[in-house]
Amino acid sequence: MADVILVLNAGSSSIKFSVFDAADRALPLLLRGQVAGLYVENARLTVLDADGKEIESRDWAGTPALDHDGAVAWLVDFLRAHKGDHQLAAVGHRVVHGGERYAEAVRVTPEVIAVLGRLAPLAPLHQPHNLKPIEAVARVRPDLPQVACFDTAFHRAQPEVAQAFALPPSITQRGVRRYGFHGLSYEYIAGALPRFDAQGARGRAIVAHLGNGASMCALVNGRSVASTMGFTAVDGLPMGTRSGTLDPGVILYLMDELGMDARAIETLIYKQSGLLGVSGISSDMRALLASEDERARFAIALYVYRIGRELGSLAAAAGGIDTLVFTAGIGENAPAIRDRVCRDAAWLGVRLDEAGNAAHGPRISAPSSRVSVWVIPTNEELMIARHTIRVARGGRAAEPVAGPDTARTPS
Amino acid sequence: MADVILVLNAGSSSIKFSVFDAADRALPLLLRGQVAGLYVENARLTVLDADGKEIESRDWAGTPALDHDGAVAWLVDFLRAHKGDHQLAAVGHRVVHGGERYAEAVRVTPEVIAVLGRLAPLAPLHQPHNLKPIEAVARVRPDLPQVACFDTAFHRAQPEVAQAFALPPSITQRGVRRYGFHGLSYEYIAGALPRFDAQGARGRAIVAHLGNGASMCALVNGRSVASTMGFTAVDGLPMGTRSGTLDPGVILYLMDELGMDARAIETLIYKQSGLLGVSGISSDMRALLASEDERARFAIALYVYRIGRELGSLAAAAGGIDTLVFTAGIGENAPAIRDRVCRDAAWLGVRLDEAGNAAHGPRISAPSSRVSVWVIPTNEELMIARHTIRVARGGRAAEPVAGPDTARTPS
Repeated sequence: MADVILVLNAGSSSIKFSVFDAADRALPLLLRGQVAGLYVENARLTVLDADGKEIESRDWAGTPALDHDGAVAWLVDFLRAHKGDHQLAAVGHRVVHGGERYAEAVRVTPEVIAVLGRLAPLAPLHQPHNLKPIEAVARVRPDLPQVACFDTAFHRAQPEVAQAFALPPSITQRGVRRYGFHGLSYEYIAGALPRFDAQGARGRAIVAHLGNGASMCALVNGRSVASTMGFTAVDGLPMGTRSGTLDPGVILYLMDELGMDARAIETLIYKQSGLLGVSGISSDMRALLASEDERARFAIALYVYRIGRELGSLAAAAGGIDTLVFTAGIGENAPAIRDRVCRDAAWLGVRLDEAGNAAHGPRISAPSSRVSVWVIPTNEELMIARHTIRVARGGRAAEPVAGPDTARTPS
Repeated sequence: MADVILVLNAGSSSIKFSVFDAADRALPLLLRGQVAGLYVENARLTVLDADGKEIESRDWAGTPALDHDGAVAWLVDFLRAHKGDHQLAAVGHRVVHGGERYAEAVRVTPEVIAVLGRLAPLAPLHQPHNLKPIEAVARVRPDLPQVACFDTAFHRAQPEVAQAFALPPSITQRGVRRYGFHGLSYEYIAGALPRFDAQGARGRAIVAHLGNGASMCALVNGRSVASTMGFTAVDGLPMGTRSGTLDPGVILYLMDELGMDARAIETLIYKQSGLLGVSGISSDMRALLASEDERARFAIALYVYRIGRELGSLAAAAGGIDTLVFTAGIGENAPAIRDRVCRDAAWLGVRLDEAGNAAHGPRISAPSSRVSVWVIPTNEELMIARHTIRVARGGRAAEPVAGPDTARTPS
């Protein structure tokens, strides 16, 4: 029986999963899918093969509505039946917050679960959901090694000034600092970049992870030195429905003048802002790019402008820029956005290769460009699988290997 | 009788004033000073001559404690007695907020006062105090032309993307946008820069107004294209006691986890943060530079780092940088800070001239520097006097003229 690694990424109403073949050093993807519709009627399990073809779809017929525990049990049952010739060797979990403590992935123990639970106030919308499947797997399969992989861990190497707010110790000592997120994506890109541009990877690279959540990260020699997301995942760039950076005085105004409480403000800046809020049309960049509406155009202009401002800010953190990488949904699939970002970055020495950009790269900079520019698909699930096998086996990570990256999760 | 212009800058507990000779196109300073200690016992009027020598100091003996109205009356009386050979021609006021409406200084009318009063929710800590002396003068000397000069006006020419937050129209249509402040200082510098660097002034200049309040502004051909302060004067750089930019999620955390209300958060981020909050020692850069304390060093490091990040961000807004200007208290007087900012900006082509820097400029960049770097004292009061005489006379502004700038207000 060949070993497989199960990777879980749990949100408030769904669990995404991927299954990787642990027998092969390249960790090829075998299956992926999700259980969606938790806590409502009609939860559904969907399974795709490595090529993205749907091979299974089941509706949950039981009552009450499926919760995280039920979804994990259902998933483990399905995998046991479906992949009878495979053995689950370990489970890796995406966990949004590792706090100040975890600068790398960690084997799950009861103590780790307790520590991660105490971080919930730092990420109340994500952390509790991330932890539920860990506890569920521990109940169903207490024998299985589990590994928690953090979106924050990769950024813990940043200089202290990059992580600090100018607040007094009474606040900062509670853990109020810039954590940065999308760390698994940036770590994956940092590992992949040398295959594309060995020299650039040793230098100053800025990675734009432009998905439904969006952030940017400055790397120097493959290590994070700064990122646009701060204490939470609402800071930095405007996103699909998130505002990105706001003057803190705006929040005081919302409280004083509009009488909004924390939940109303949270809903506003997490769910009703960003591309959706500005355009009034959609949080989906494809819809905005296809629209003739002036508000859609302005939402795109603001999005591109803010990327440009953060590019300058991150170049300052890195002491310049040698390489620019686009990744995640919009970064990988929207040549019009890459085009505009690159044109605005002409002052940094960026020159776009239009044909390369239209073909989605991988290289999209012209030979005359002082900055090499790339489109590199991210693969957070594979990064989790690598951490999981390394930590579960107590050894070193599998080396990044050349070859197509097959798993993808919208982010 | 020669005409003079009175410039007033009113805060919550003091009114600063300057008197300029309107008969001379250069608007030389005649007197300046303040009435401090309003609303407590022992208000005091202090008057300095143009060289900064104290020529008068009076304590308020009456009861009740002096308010803004009383201070204005006292001041007008004093000026009448002291400068009997001068005639007050007009009064110019520094007003923090001109909203979206005022892109330049405006003659005060009852309608203007009403409009400015309605902007108070946008600057509750400043706007009401700024307006009190306008109303007081109107009562004491209804014949006198009064001109309101705004810290926001200079920035209204910025592109819309530079002024917008990624929030829905339900919020932005209430006037929630990036106004930028210190506009009178930036306008003064934009007017002065051609005397120092005519070519640079036509290009892309970044001005660092580093006072007790601190912000930065990108100019292209003398016009503001972006600034670090946003909706309020708490955003952007860390300052003496203000936090500067914060992840909005931090404010939600303070509400949810620490049970802080708007007033407590306001006190934290306006009064207890920044250099004072981080160092735990002082809001005064001189004290921090003199300290061996590790927290003082970190506060300085964070301050310099954030300036560097904003320099990159503003360079992006301007499409590059040709000229860098330091101004205001710290900018004009702290060579150690300028030194560190310039070294961090080496990636932009900045090369410091150490001797020039030690001598406070005016030029502090080396001949090899791709970016010309200057120390230029700001003079917001003179800028107000220029606007005031122009608007009061219904004509063009007095041209900037060469010569020492004598008035200065800590900012």
